[in-house]
Amino acid sequence: MLTSERYGVRRLPFSSLSDSDLAFFEGVMPGRVITNPEELKPFNVDWLKSVRGCSKLMLKPQTTAEVSQVLRYCYERNLAVNPQGGNTGLVGGSVPVFDEIILSTVLMNRIISFDKVSGILVCQAGCVLEKLNEYLEEQGFIMPLDLGAKGSCHIGGNVATNAGGLRLLRYGSLRGTVLGLEVVLADGSALDCLASLRKDNTGYDLKQLFIGSEGTLGVITAVSILCPQKPKAVNLAFLGCQSFAKVLETFTTCRAMLGEILSAYEFMDEKCMELVEKHLKLSSPVAAFYDGMTGWVDEGRAVDIVYLDFSKAFDPVSNNILTGDGNLHLNITAESYSHSLLDAIEPFVYEWTARHNGSISAEHGLGFKKKQFIQYSKPSEAVLLMQRFKAMLDPKGILNPYKMLPSSS
Amino acid sequence: MLTSERYGVRRLPFSSLSDSDLAFFEGVMPGRVITNPEELKPFNVDWLKSVRGCSKLMLKPQTTAEVSQVLRYCYERNLAVNPQGGNTGLVGGSVPVFDEIILSTVLMNRIISFDKVSGILVCQAGCVLEKLNEYLEEQGFIMPLDLGAKGSCHIGGNVATNAGGLRLLRYGSLRGTVLGLEVVLADGSALDCLASLRKDNTGYDLKQLFIGSEGTLGVITAVSILCPQKPKAVNLAFLGCQSFAKVLETFTTCRAMLGEILSAYEFMDEKCMELVEKHLKLSSPVAAFYDGMTGWVDEGRAVDIVYLDFSKAFDPVSNNILTGDGNLHLNITAESYSHSLLDAIEPFVYEWTARHNGSISAEHGLGFKKKQFIQYSKPSEAVLLMQRFKAMLDPKGILNPYKMLPSSS
Repeated sequence: MLTSERYGVRRLPFSSLSDSDLAFFEGVMPGRVITNPEELKPFNVDWLKSVRGCSKLMLKPQTTAEVSQVLRYCYERNLAVNPQGGNTGLVGGSVPVFDEIILSTVLMNRIISFDKVSGILVCQAGCVLEKLNEYLEEQGFIMPLDLGAKGSCHIGGNVATNAGGLRLLRYGSLRGTVLGLEVVLADGSALDCLASLRKDNTGYDLKQLFIGSEGTLGVITAVSILCPQKPKAVNLAFLGCQSFAKVLETFTTCRAMLGEILSAYEFMDEKCMELVEKHLKLSSPVAAFYDGMTGWVDEGRAVDIVYLDFSKAFDPVSNNILTGDGNLHLNITAESYSHSLLDAIEPFVYEWTARHNGSISAEHGLGFKKKQFIQYSKPSEAVLLMQRFKAMLDPKGILNPYKMLPSSS
Repeated sequence: MLTSERYGVRRLPFSSLSDSDLAFFEGVMPGRVITNPEELKPFNVDWLKSVRGCSKLMLKPQTTAEVSQVLRYCYERNLAVNPQGGNTGLVGGSVPVFDEIILSTVLMNRIISFDKVSGILVCQAGCVLEKLNEYLEEQGFIMPLDLGAKGSCHIGGNVATNAGGLRLLRYGSLRGTVLGLEVVLADGSALDCLASLRKDNTGYDLKQLFIGSEGTLGVITAVSILCPQKPKAVNLAFLGCQSFAKVLETFTTCRAMLGEILSAYEFMDEKCMELVEKHLKLSSPVAAFYDGMTGWVDEGRAVDIVYLDFSKAFDPVSNNILTGDGNLHLNITAESYSHSLLDAIEPFVYEWTARHNGSISAEHGLGFKKKQFIQYSKPSEAVLLMQRFKAMLDPKGILNPYKMLPSSS
C-alpha cells in the first residue's frame, strides 16, 4: 500500500479539525457528518487498495448551497478538502493523502432534467453513471461515455477526471459532450456555467478548466451533458490480422465504410490472446498476427508478464500509437507488489512514451501517484501556467492537495 | 460604420509607435513590415464594413519565433496588438479599434504534417480553411468544420473564435476536434500544447482557454486537428412540415435512423421561403408549414423584413431553440444602416434570448460589437473570473484590447 511517505510528501500546514468545526458541519447537514472510523475506512482507501489516507471526517452534502457553505468555512479555517465521487480512480486522486476532509457527492444524485429532442441531460454530480444510462435507455438514449467502473463512478468524477472509456471513438470526449457545469470554487463561491447549448461563444469557456482538473480547482456539483440516441443495433466483428500494419489498414477501411457510427476499435496481440486462453479459458476464434512481446523481457527487466507489448502498437511512420483512440492499457503482473519493481518500470515506460510524444496518462489523470511525472508529457512552461491557475483559483491550496501538479516551490 | 465612439470607448494609454519600433520590426522580419496607408486600409476595416480602426502598422511573421519576438517587444514597450487572421469576423473582433499593431497570420500558412491513419493534421495558424480542405480531400479526408468564409478565413482565426459552421452536428465542436495548439502569450513566451493525442489527461487542458478567446489571451500560431474521412456520398432531403412540432419530430426520427452520420438539419419558415422566391427567383419544391413571422412586426418595431421568425423555432416544452445544433441566424434588413434601429432591436433580441437561457453569440464571438452584452448570457461571477484570467495572462492588456470582455473597472 502506498502512503504519503512513498513520494516523500509532507503534510502541509492546514488546520486540524476541532470540535467546533464538527459542530458547524453538523449544523449545516445534520446526520450527514461521518466521524465513525469504521464507516470512514473504505473512503480512505482507493479501489486498487494502493493508497491510503487517514481522514477523520466525511461530509455528505445534498445541495450546491451546502457544498458552498462547507467550502466557505473550510477556506476561512484553512481546512483541506478531498472531493470524492465513486472512489473508482486508479491514480490515488480520489482519497485523502493525510487527514483531508472527504467531501462526498454520494447524496447529490438527482436528475434535474432531460430533453428528448435535444438529448440534453442535466443532473447533480453524484449520479452514478450506470443509473444515468439506465434512466436514459428507458427513453431511447444512452450516456456518451461508458467505462468499467460504471456501476460505482459518479458523473461528477467522470467529468473531473475527463474520463474517456469505451465510446469515445464514436461520441467524442467529454470536452465536446459536456455542455455546462456548476462548480463551487475553493472559497465557496458557486459558478453557474450550467448552460445547455450546443453552441455558445460568449467569453472564455470556463467549464473546460474544471473538466479534468481532478478536484483541484473546484468541486463540480452539477453537469449538463449531450446524450446520443441509443443505437438500434450493435454489431461486433472479431478479425485476425497478419501484422500491425494490417491492423491499421483495417481500421482505416472500417472508418471509411462506417463513418462516425464506428464505436470502437481494439486490438490484442498474440501474448494477450494466450493469456486470455490460459486464465479465462476462452479460445481465440481466429488464428493470425499476435507475435507477442519481445523488447521488454529481452531487456532483462524484472517483469513476469506483460499483457500488452506496446512496441507492436506503434506506427513508425506517424510516430504515434494508433488503434481506435490511440489509448493503451499496460498491465503488469508480478508475484507481489514491490516498490523496487515499480521504480524500475515506471521511468522506462514514461521515457519511452515521452520519446514518442505520447501521454503518460491518456485517461486516468495524474492524481497522487503520477503527479511527479507530468513533465514527461507537458513542457515546463505549461506546468508553470497550470500552477498559476491553481494559485489563482485556490490560493490556500485546500482543494485536493498533494494531487495532480508537482509542488510549485 | 461603427467607430470607437460608438460605445464610448476611449483609447487606453498604450505607447505610440516610434521610428525605433519600426526599425526593430524591420530587423525581425525584413520586407514584411507594412506601413503604407493604402495597403493597410482593407485590414483596418471588417468584412461587413461596420467597424474601422486606424492602425499604422501591419506585421507579417512567418514563424512562431517571430511572433514571440514581436510580442516580447510589444509587451516591454506597452504597444497594443490586434491579432488578425482572414478578417472575416462579424463582430468587429478582427480589426483594430484604434491604432493597435495588426499582427497578421497571412504568411503562416504551412502544413506541418498529416497522418492518414489517425486523420490528424498539424498546420500553422494562417492556413486558409478551404486550402486545408482541398489538401485533405486529395487524401480522402475533410476538415471537421466548414463555413461561408472558408475561402478567406484562417484556421487560427477559426480556433480563436471557436467557429461552429455547417458540420458541427456531425463532427462536433472545435473543443473536441482540436487536439493541440501552439500559442504565444502576451509576454512573448511560447506555449507548446501541440499534442496530437485523442486522449491526454496530464494536467489542466490549457489549450481550451485559448479556443474561443478571440486573440485576447494569446496568439495561436499552430493547430493540431482531428479530421474525418471524406464521406463516400452526400444525400440531401428537402421536407415540408405542417408545424414546428413536426420539424422537431422529424429531426428526432432522422437522428434515430442515421445516428452520427446526420451532418446537418436546417429549417426555414414560410416568410423565409417567400424571400428566397422573391429575391433569388428560386421556387419551393414543397408546400407546407411556413406560417411566417408574427410577433415582431406586430409589436410595431421599425423592421422592414425579418428573415427568420425565431418565435417559431422555439420549443415551449424544452424551453430551447432547437433545430439541428440549436443555432439561429437572425438577419434584419432596413433601408439603410441606423444606430437608432440597432439600439431598438438589440436589447429586445438579447433580453428575449436571455429569458430563454440562450446564448447571444452562438458562433461569432463577442468581439468589439457585443462585448458589453456578455451579461445577457453569462453570470457576473463568470465574467469576473474571465477578467481575472485575462489579467493573469495579459497583465498589461496589450492583446486585442477593447474586445470580448467588458472593461474590468
